[in-house]
Amino acid sequence: MATSIWNNIVLVRKTSPLVHNVTNYVVMNNTANALLAVGASPIMAHAHQEIDEMVGLCEAMVINIGTLDEYWVQSMLTTAEKANALKKPFVLDPVGAGATHYRDRTLAKLIALRPTVIRANASEILALAKFNATKTKGVDSTAQSTEAIEAAKVLNQTFGATICISGETDIIISKGQQVRVKNGNSLMTKVTGLGCSATAIIGAFIAVIEDRTAAVTAATALMGVCGEIAAKSAKGPGSLQMLLLDKLYNITEEEFMHHIQLEKI
Amino acid sequence: MATSIWNNIVLVRKTSPLVHNVTNYVVMNNTANALLAVGASPIMAHAHQEIDEMVGLCEAMVINIGTLDEYWVQSMLTTAEKANALKKPFVLDPVGAGATHYRDRTLAKLIALRPTVIRANASEILALAKFNATKTKGVDSTAQSTEAIEAAKVLNQTFGATICISGETDIIISKGQQVRVKNGNSLMTKVTGLGCSATAIIGAFIAVIEDRTAAVTAATALMGVCGEIAAKSAKGPGSLQMLLLDKLYNITEEEFMHHIQLEKI
Amino acid sequence: MATSIWNNIVLVRKTSPLVHNVTNYVVMNNTANALLAVGASPIMAHAHQEIDEMVGLCEAMVINIGTLDEYWVQSMLTTAEKANALKKPFVLDPVGAGATHYRDRTLAKLIALRPTVIRANASEILALAKFNATKTKGVDSTAQSTEAIEAAKVLNQTFGATICISGETDIIISKGQQVRVKNGNSLMTKVTGLGCSATAIIGAFIAVIEDRTAAVTAATALMGVCGEIAAKSAKGPGSLQMLLLDKLYNITEEEFMHHIQLEKI
Repeated sequence: MATSIWNNIVLVRKTSPLVHNVTNYVVMNNTANALLAVGASPIMAHAHQEIDEMVGLCEAMVINIGTLDEYWVQSMLTTAEKANALKKPFVLDPVGAGATHYRDRTLAKLIALRPTVIRANASEILALAKFNATKTKGVDSTAQSTEAIEAAKVLNQTFGATICISGETDIIISKGQQVRVKNGNSLMTKVTGLGCSATAIIGAFIAVIEDRTAAVTAATALMGVCGEIAAKSAKGPGSLQMLLLDKLYNITEEEFMHHIQLEKI
Repeated sequence: MATSIWNNIVLVRKTSPLVHNVTNYVVMNNTANALLAVGASPIMAHAHQEIDEMVGLCEAMVINIGTLDEYWVQSMLTTAEKANALKKPFVLDPVGAGATHYRDRTLAKLIALRPTVIRANASEILALAKFNATKTKGVDSTAQSTEAIEAAKVLNQTFGATICISGETDIIISKGQQVRVKNGNSLMTKVTGLGCSATAIIGAFIAVIEDRTAAVTAATALMGVCGEIAAKSAKGPGSLQMLLLDKLYNITEEEFMHHIQLEKI
Repeated sequence: MATSIWNNIVLVRKTSPLVHNVTNYVVMNNTANALLAVGASPIMAHAHQEIDEMVGLCEAMVINIGTLDEYWVQSMLTTAEKANALKKPFVLDPVGAGATHYRDRTLAKLIALRPTVIRANASEILALAKFNATKTKGVDSTAQSTEAIEAAKVLNQTFGATICISGETDIIISKGQQVRVKNGNSLMTKVTGLGCSATAIIGAFIAVIEDRTAAVTAATALMGVCGEIAAKSAKGPGSLQMLLLDKLYNITEEEFMHHIQLEKI
């Protein structure tokens, strides 16, 4: 399995898919850099006048509600609708699900448009599935992962999306399958937008890999392994961000194979 | 005094306060990273539909007018009003005060909502207090600090805010008290948004420390000391930004005590 | 020629021109940092209420359509109009020209306002000149440079703008003159917004240098040489961004002279 994952990483590097992002202001720069580092070509655009054409040009879409407002919500909905019309995949990052009613109303509309993948921490997954989640605290993962797994299964069955629950262990859930990626480092939670970067990288992988579980697993493993390696030399969150972008760009098969820790259930 | 400052730094790390930011596009990423590095949890949101709930969730607010427009000004006003209604503190960074009439009109409204703290360079403080300031040049500090201190006293007496005048020496003014923090390094002015980061860190400290002068002093000293240490190894503004985030995260009591230079007047 | 280029670099450092940017969300932070690193003072503002005053305060303007929408397009048009009224220079970066009709309609309006300089990759230049360009792929340069040179000549003759075609070799075209800058490194294309940073730096140089070809050549050479030196120590795009900002700030005459590779045709 690890070999086929590496092959998928190489495939993204070789094909350099165009990925359209409707994402939040905080992470646009490091998300675009993460996409470039793994070999993809990022586009960020939100004008209602051009969304349809941008979706037409791109091979996958990333929707992240971090700094949503009325205009941007419409951009997100149009992006998802056009992606559906063109049968192109999109990944949803429901940042802050459960924190406000506006986020939850917006997410209800977006999830009804059937994202190909949803990537979120445990408390966001619980909120999305309308489980009685403890109140979201920022973007931290506070809820129990066992409950979140049940919520993820419900989301997968109801909306068809492959679910990735981020956390110390990242858990990928799709149609009875469960893959656990045990890479990463806790220092990654001290850099803003690394979760959003992981979501965008999933966008790059679903752009070129038909098997959604394989695509999400490869993207998640790449981010986790690179973060783990970067954290070894990092002296804090500043150097971690820099070293992570370097590693996403220059990681070799040998390094990747040496670090990856997968479990299939 | 230095010991109680360190205790306050530890308190922020331990309590990890949620801080809501309505700030400018240029600095969102490095401001969020600065908040994470000192141990706080940043939220950035501006949609009118969710401001009230976000203020309800958070323990302090940061308002920064750097890239203001009509929609965002309303977000800022609502944030300040709701903070007042819930008796929660907020800090104002009046970026570019005096540069345009629109900024000055907006600031008149925001200041009337009685910010807990105002942090700005000397020329912005002069403009806020309607002193005859030399025209603001970007975000640089050009005005004489003696005049700015008089202006700060007027602002403190009129609006009750604790004032922090940033500059080579940072001066904190509140009810007859004056604290001077003589840390920092001039290279910090060559990295965009370090002033905005300092303001956000003040937000994290007023979230958990009742004594406003103590909170602003701790936040200002932490930023100044970390910037000073980071500048010793920096080869330019790129490495300074990285090293500063690392140092905000990993500074020890010993390092802090060795560098801090305070004066109480 | 190289000596006069260095003198122009020193002039920007000494005069620290105020540069007003109406640019895209993705690159605001690293663009502001690039301007600070070369010695300029960046302002970023877009509110319709203050554009006129900001243009009045600044010595040159930068317009970059990367994440355009209705509000921002109006900000860009007003910036260009006011710059013309005050006879101040502005540089245009037509990000994604040819990718959507909305971009092309917007660019038709902006180009009619006669930018002082246009900086873009080959496919964007072809699209701007309404040549039959291959479809823009992100911000990469895919079109043949010979065709792009013809298109640039047409743009120069029709609108009077000095044109800078970015690529492996950067080509500057103005009234029969052609200058080629053969610096830079391909790793620079893996960092988001370095093209936008180069455009902003051109803004800083046209703010203080009357001879437009000389200004654009100096800015382009500075970016290329610094990127080339930074790439030697970079281990990937993360460290390249950091090292580039350091080098823009600390490059010496000796280093610059040792690396610059110009050709005048």
